[in-house]
Amino acid sequence: MTRYVYQFEEGDGKDRKRLGGKGAGLAEMSRIGLPVPPGFTITTEACNQYQADNAVPSGLMDEVWEHLGELEAKLDRRLGNVERPLLVSVRSGAPISMPGMMDTVLNLGLNPDTVEGMARLTGNRRFALDSYRRFIQMFGNVVMHMEHAQFEHILEAVKREVGVEQDTKLTEAHLEEVIRRYKALVQKETGRAFPDDPREQLSMAILAVFDSWRNPRAIVYRRLNKIPEDLGTAVNVQSMVFGNMGDTSATGVLFTRNPNTGEPGMYGEYLTNAQGEDVVAGIRTPKEIGEMAEEMPKTYHELVEVCALLERHYRDMQDIEFTVQEEKLYLLQTRSGKRTARAAVKIGVDLAEEGVITRDEAILRQDPEQVQRLLYRQIDPNAELDVLAEGLPASPGAASGRVVFTADEAEARGQAGETVILVRPETTPDDIHGIVAAQGVLTSRGGMTSHAAIVARGMGKPAVTGCEAVKISLDDETFMVGDRVVSKDTLITIDGGTGRVMIGMVPTVDPELSAEFTKLLDWADETRRLKVHANADTPEDAAKAREFGATGVGLCRTEHMFMGQDRLPVVQAMILAETLEERQGPLKELLPMQEGDFYGILKAMDGYPVTIRLLDPPLHEFLPDIGDTEKALARAREAGDDGDALKLEAILRRARSLFEFNPMLGFRGVRLGIVYPEIYAMQARAIFQAQARLLKEGFHPDVEVMIPLVGTPEELARMKDMVAEVNRTVEDEQAVELPYKIGTMIEVPRAALVAGSIAEHAQFFSFGTNDLTQTTFGYSRDDAESKFLPTYLAEKILTDNPFMVLDRKGVGRLIEIAVADGRATRADLKVGICGEHGGDPSSIEFCHLAGLNYVSCSPFRVPVARLAAAQASLRH
Amino acid sequence: MTRYVYQFEEGDGKDRKRLGGKGAGLAEMSRIGLPVPPGFTITTEACNQYQADNAVPSGLMDEVWEHLGELEAKLDRRLGNVERPLLVSVRSGAPISMPGMMDTVLNLGLNPDTVEGMARLTGNRRFALDSYRRFIQMFGNVVMHMEHAQFEHILEAVKREVGVEQDTKLTEAHLEEVIRRYKALVQKETGRAFPDDPREQLSMAILAVFDSWRNPRAIVYRRLNKIPEDLGTAVNVQSMVFGNMGDTSATGVLFTRNPNTGEPGMYGEYLTNAQGEDVVAGIRTPKEIGEMAEEMPKTYHELVEVCALLERHYRDMQDIEFTVQEEKLYLLQTRSGKRTARAAVKIGVDLAEEGVITRDEAILRQDPEQVQRLLYRQIDPNAELDVLAEGLPASPGAASGRVVFTADEAEARGQAGETVILVRPETTPDDIHGIVAAQGVLTSRGGMTSHAAIVARGMGKPAVTGCEAVKISLDDETFMVGDRVVSKDTLITIDGGTGRVMIGMVPTVDPELSAEFTKLLDWADETRRLKVHANADTPEDAAKAREFGATGVGLCRTEHMFMGQDRLPVVQAMILAETLEERQGPLKELLPMQEGDFYGILKAMDGYPVTIRLLDPPLHEFLPDIGDTEKALARAREAGDDGDALKLEAILRRARSLFEFNPMLGFRGVRLGIVYPEIYAMQARAIFQAQARLLKEGFHPDVEVMIPLVGTPEELARMKDMVAEVNRTVEDEQAVELPYKIGTMIEVPRAALVAGSIAEHAQFFSFGTNDLTQTTFGYSRDDAESKFLPTYLAEKILTDNPFMVLDRKGVGRLIEIAVADGRATRADLKVGICGEHGGDPSSIEFCHLAGLNYVSCSPFRVPVARLAAAQASLRH
Repeated sequence: MTRYVYQFEEGDGKDRKRLGGKGAGLAEMSRIGLPVPPGFTITTEACNQYQADNAVPSGLMDEVWEHLGELEAKLDRRLGNVERPLLVSVRSGAPISMPGMMDTVLNLGLNPDTVEGMARLTGNRRFALDSYRRFIQMFGNVVMHMEHAQFEHILEAVKREVGVEQDTKLTEAHLEEVIRRYKALVQKETGRAFPDDPREQLSMAILAVFDSWRNPRAIVYRRLNKIPEDLGTAVNVQSMVFGNMGDTSATGVLFTRNPNTGEPGMYGEYLTNAQGEDVVAGIRTPKEIGEMAEEMPKTYHELVEVCALLERHYRDMQDIEFTVQEEKLYLLQTRSGKRTARAAVKIGVDLAEEGVITRDEAILRQDPEQVQRLLYRQIDPNAELDVLAEGLPASPGAASGRVVFTADEAEARGQAGETVILVRPETTPDDIHGIVAAQGVLTSRGGMTSHAAIVARGMGKPAVTGCEAVKISLDDETFMVGDRVVSKDTLITIDGGTGRVMIGMVPTVDPELSAEFTKLLDWADETRRLKVHANADTPEDAAKAREFGATGVGLCRTEHMFMGQDRLPVVQAMILAETLEERQGPLKELLPMQEGDFYGILKAMDGYPVTIRLLDPPLHEFLPDIGDTEKALARAREAGDDGDALKLEAILRRARSLFEFNPMLGFRGVRLGIVYPEIYAMQARAIFQAQARLLKEGFHPDVEVMIPLVGTPEELARMKDMVAEVNRTVEDEQAVELPYKIGTMIEVPRAALVAGSIAEHAQFFSFGTNDLTQTTFGYSRDDAESKFLPTYLAEKILTDNPFMVLDRKGVGRLIEIAVADGRATRADLKVGICGEHGGDPSSIEFCHLAGLNYVSCSPFRVPVARLAAAQASLRH
Repeated sequence: MTRYVYQFEEGDGKDRKRLGGKGAGLAEMSRIGLPVPPGFTITTEACNQYQADNAVPSGLMDEVWEHLGELEAKLDRRLGNVERPLLVSVRSGAPISMPGMMDTVLNLGLNPDTVEGMARLTGNRRFALDSYRRFIQMFGNVVMHMEHAQFEHILEAVKREVGVEQDTKLTEAHLEEVIRRYKALVQKETGRAFPDDPREQLSMAILAVFDSWRNPRAIVYRRLNKIPEDLGTAVNVQSMVFGNMGDTSATGVLFTRNPNTGEPGMYGEYLTNAQGEDVVAGIRTPKEIGEMAEEMPKTYHELVEVCALLERHYRDMQDIEFTVQEEKLYLLQTRSGKRTARAAVKIGVDLAEEGVITRDEAILRQDPEQVQRLLYRQIDPNAELDVLAEGLPASPGAASGRVVFTADEAEARGQAGETVILVRPETTPDDIHGIVAAQGVLTSRGGMTSHAAIVARGMGKPAVTGCEAVKISLDDETFMVGDRVVSKDTLITIDGGTGRVMIGMVPTVDPELSAEFTKLLDWADETRRLKVHANADTPEDAAKAREFGATGVGLCRTEHMFMGQDRLPVVQAMILAETLEERQGPLKELLPMQEGDFYGILKAMDGYPVTIRLLDPPLHEFLPDIGDTEKALARAREAGDDGDALKLEAILRRARSLFEFNPMLGFRGVRLGIVYPEIYAMQARAIFQAQARLLKEGFHPDVEVMIPLVGTPEELARMKDMVAEVNRTVEDEQAVELPYKIGTMIEVPRAALVAGSIAEHAQFFSFGTNDLTQTTFGYSRDDAESKFLPTYLAEKILTDNPFMVLDRKGVGRLIEIAVADGRATRADLKVGICGEHGGDPSSIEFCHLAGLNYVSCSPFRVPVARLAAAQASLRH
């Protein structure tokens, strides 16, 4: 015959299926010798049998009475006994936590007789009567399905009649009147007397828990959370303990370590002669747990031991509720405690060093996204915020400064030591010097890949973009949000991690890379299979990336180098050239600049691979806006400035001829290299000249040349030959061997689909998952994020923004195809990812599963990537 | 021992590898009893042995002399014999035709003795001497590697000395002098005498053919054409015949049927007492072959029989060269004759009906692209053209008319019966009425998928787009091409099949759908597995499609319906609406219009499926240009027209908020349906109301609702539920069952990659290969075709424009994945293609191989698609 009831100490702490979550926890704590108020659990099987038969399973109640007898014997109290009444709580407990289910019934066992026994035992008749009143109310509501409000009406009425405002002012006589009326209400509403027989109370409560499995709230909750209907719930019957039995009693909550900092040692508070409700009610001020060492030394040391035991047993920092009844310590609950990111890191590392958990576990317990926050200056979580507007969280971190509206002013005032925030409708290459000098950037237009967003992320500088509520008037040097006008020089704060914009200087907290964090990352490095590289376009970025632990540059974009104020005119001259000869002049001017760029980056990453991507964006990105140029031309003509007009006409002509309907799918990447091979040849020469210089200076440059946007093997083959020729020429000129690898970005679906052929010419693939996501979905990120993606995410058509979390089913399938076909052609093909996904934990897990060699992400994401890569390695 | 030499009649006509192409042909003709001048072939193996050993293969020359003896015996003439001299030609003949190889040597065997024998035999000593002169010149050049020009100098010198201008005026004495000087030149240049011994001549000529296999021209040719180096060439030695031996001799060329019309009966010309060269030289006017029936009746009837024999044997219309020597007919060559598209169709059908070939062969022999030309009015191939400029061949057909620059003028004058060509920088929805009324469209901007191109193709109206040489000044109502100014009202002709633009009215030829063509297509229909549907947006298109044999509409685009002059204001009002309520008004206005559209199309395609695609393009396509609106607003403000300004401001605001960086990847297709479900719901209601009307009128509408641009199963699931709800509502309202299918376009890579899940909600897939190609390659067609695709095609990075010919490796692989995964989910999934590729033969072949159910193309491509589908079926 099936056994339905187990004393806590008999139960298997792992058998959540039969005992439910709460029952298993109580069993576990009892089993390891912790002082848990005794009790027993009725299994989920009993519940399921009840549901199936629509009747109390035969033999169940016999078992309950038998176990109740054991409990009574253990405690030397009996249910319904007047001298030593046993009071119990009755709670539901399903295998999966279900907030939609039955509430708790406390103090079960009270009746007109036992309440007097309680009064004698506690020496506090008022307390006993109040407990009885509460029990009737709770039982009436939860078990007898009466409305809570009806009881409250009675209580309010009595208080009104006797002229008191607070419950605590009710005397014993008042409470007796309340109880009388409660019972009358029960009789009236249910047609039966409130049960005085404690056994009847218990039977009714158990069946009420069973019934609660089928209440509408629970059914909806299960459907929403996809919880099977046949799990059933267990019922826990536990003896009551009281922390309010005088000065040798107490109640409290504590953490086994400091949940804010992670420092070891108990952290919490308690109240003597009180119940849990009193702590919550805040009527008395609780004491620091440390004070207990003097006030109740024995209990204090018991608690210290319990904490140690719990941490060793549960292998984590615990959040504990306890009650002391007449010097005896009882644990009512223990669970893993919530903690800050900082504490999580320290606790994980400390527990591993204490031998409580393994290093692998310390790694696995971190939430990479939470850890990420340690790396940016953040809004103080305790600060009160006056949020003015919300835009896109384009580049994380918080920054405060005075509003300025032009890059030139940002530069001038920034260099003068002022803190400013550059506010623009959107930014262009002309604004770079302003972004460098500002604390952060706020734009009213543009998405997560807008110029401002990319540049700011690259610099690790906070940015909020696409903040459409901000209406900027450049002429007035003001912006409006609704009716509020914000003028130049106003102090504002932006939070690039959430997209919020606040008026004034908001307090922030410093980032920290603590000793424990560093240690954790070192452990992660020993565990992970994926290498972690960084996307870096400058020597400074590269140095920062190494500092954060990157072992290579996975993506060095050369276009940002073209956008410096000193470069842009030369780049524009190159673009305006109409013949190859005309183009040679500007290219010659650019060559030493590019050589300097590559020299710096290769040197900063000395000994590690640096993957340099040749020019990628469409050329019109380097030209001024057509509309602006038209206006400038009109002005020049009006002013009679013929020379200027002629120049502007040339720019306008070229800008118009380069105009594209869909620049994302246009004349860019290798398509430029095929049509204007001289541009790529100049870049290749600059790379190899830098490499030669470094080699001669005793460095170890590790060069990888990457061709962007390849979609056919032929494109790569042509560029490979061209680069090889430049390489041979520079080798001859410099009389030094210049080894390098050549490879390609896989960023259009076709490249993935013909990867087998492309691998004939490529030594490495780097998945450019930003563009690959755009082309695979047919989403322009800038357009999608401002138009329909918000609806898609809100309506759960997409579970994640595919530009943040790599889409495994679509984009991921292409990556798997490309890796398989590419390696079939070339077994030692090196494969990595260099889109923004390279810093996203879920995407990194996918990269691990897909067998990639490395991920590359922004320098600031490197620690997260190291951690996530280790977690992926440990999980699979 | 290997045998190296075969008499023509001994050879195996199929053994091109050993006998070469020419040798095999001569063998074949000899074998089937045609009167071929006898001769023999030295095999390619002899050549290869010669190359390998660098020496004449042992026994080769013995075999040659032996076969020469047989030839001499057969003809009763002998090489070098003075009375009955045998003259031969020596020609190379590789297994694959190689124009880069040795020229022919004719009249080999002449020397000072045999030339006199020739003179006697022909009764024409001057002819014999001239033949000798020519032989020396040909042999000297081809065999002895002397320069052709050196011989010409001598000939010119003698003509100058004797004072004649034409070769034919040289007397026998003059020719004797030329021969003397030729021989002296040979002695001087080569250090040896010109060989008089005919056997030496023959040996030298044979080895010269072998050597020619390795001459630089031949090597380059083989490399370019990827012909293996080890094929070798055969050598053909053939007895000479002469058509100039008096009035019973003749020479001519003929086709066995009329190559222009395909009519049966010989078609060609001949000259009596003449050699082939004389026909080419044009000194005498040749006679129609018909005249021979009276002049040389015996030979004529022999020719008729030979033609019949050849056609039966080669199973095709032949192009023949013949010579009659003293009443005896010789065939010198036969090959399949070139023919017009019209003739090709008639000949194929006639031959099949004559039982010469099968119907399948008649189908397979057609070139679908050539056949396509029969369906459009074309430039007369004989017309002299003054080509002004070339643009993109956006919509085939030729049209002439007077230049007009506005749609309104085109409409006014077109409706008045004038023929006009609408010339615009580009067209917009506002121009539709002008395109309807014009004969054709010419634009200076825009690619093959520009508005003008799509609309014109849809209407079957000629269009040339992206003709950048044409610089339009709308203000002056002129356009310039280089220095030429073309003003309004000038008559021009455009050829949308080639992209050419001509000044003036160029003669054109009418399209024809002959009885034979119709019959051929009927045969194709019996053979093909793929169904052929048409893309049709109007009842007229649908009717045309049925006329051309389409059995369904595979793509009915609803957006063009929104662009009519009466609709656009309502559509714009719908777009400008800021709330769902505001939008309901315009939607209610559109409902009856859309119902009318669908009623018409379903009726025109009664009984066949009509796949209606819900609204696809981004909404801003229905709004006026931002720049234009800004200007109009400025004007309205200046004019103080506040009402107008307010309206324009609203339009401008909405247009700006809808502005997209990459509209191709933007807020369109199902994304509109998700964000504004009310628009799709209106369309669904219009469809079902039209269906209900038709059913009640006794028609058989077969409705398929297609959701565009789906990339996730969830998108389709939502729209499926919405459409089903509308369907149920209309069923209830109309009290009639309204069965329909629901499916989706597969036009972004992700849809193909998750097709297995999408098929859970889709009853059919239609591959939108235009967009699928754009997203798979990452090419915006409009940008690519004007920027880099020309370079890619010129440099053979791509072999075909992937927008014309479906890319099998990339896009095709996605299609294969989608078909396999989709059918794995739903075995009876109906799968088709509705991009422009649906009308391209190579793409249709792919669709057949990929197991699709149908292709859908523009109505004008339906016949081609029927043919190509049958060919694909027959080939695989």
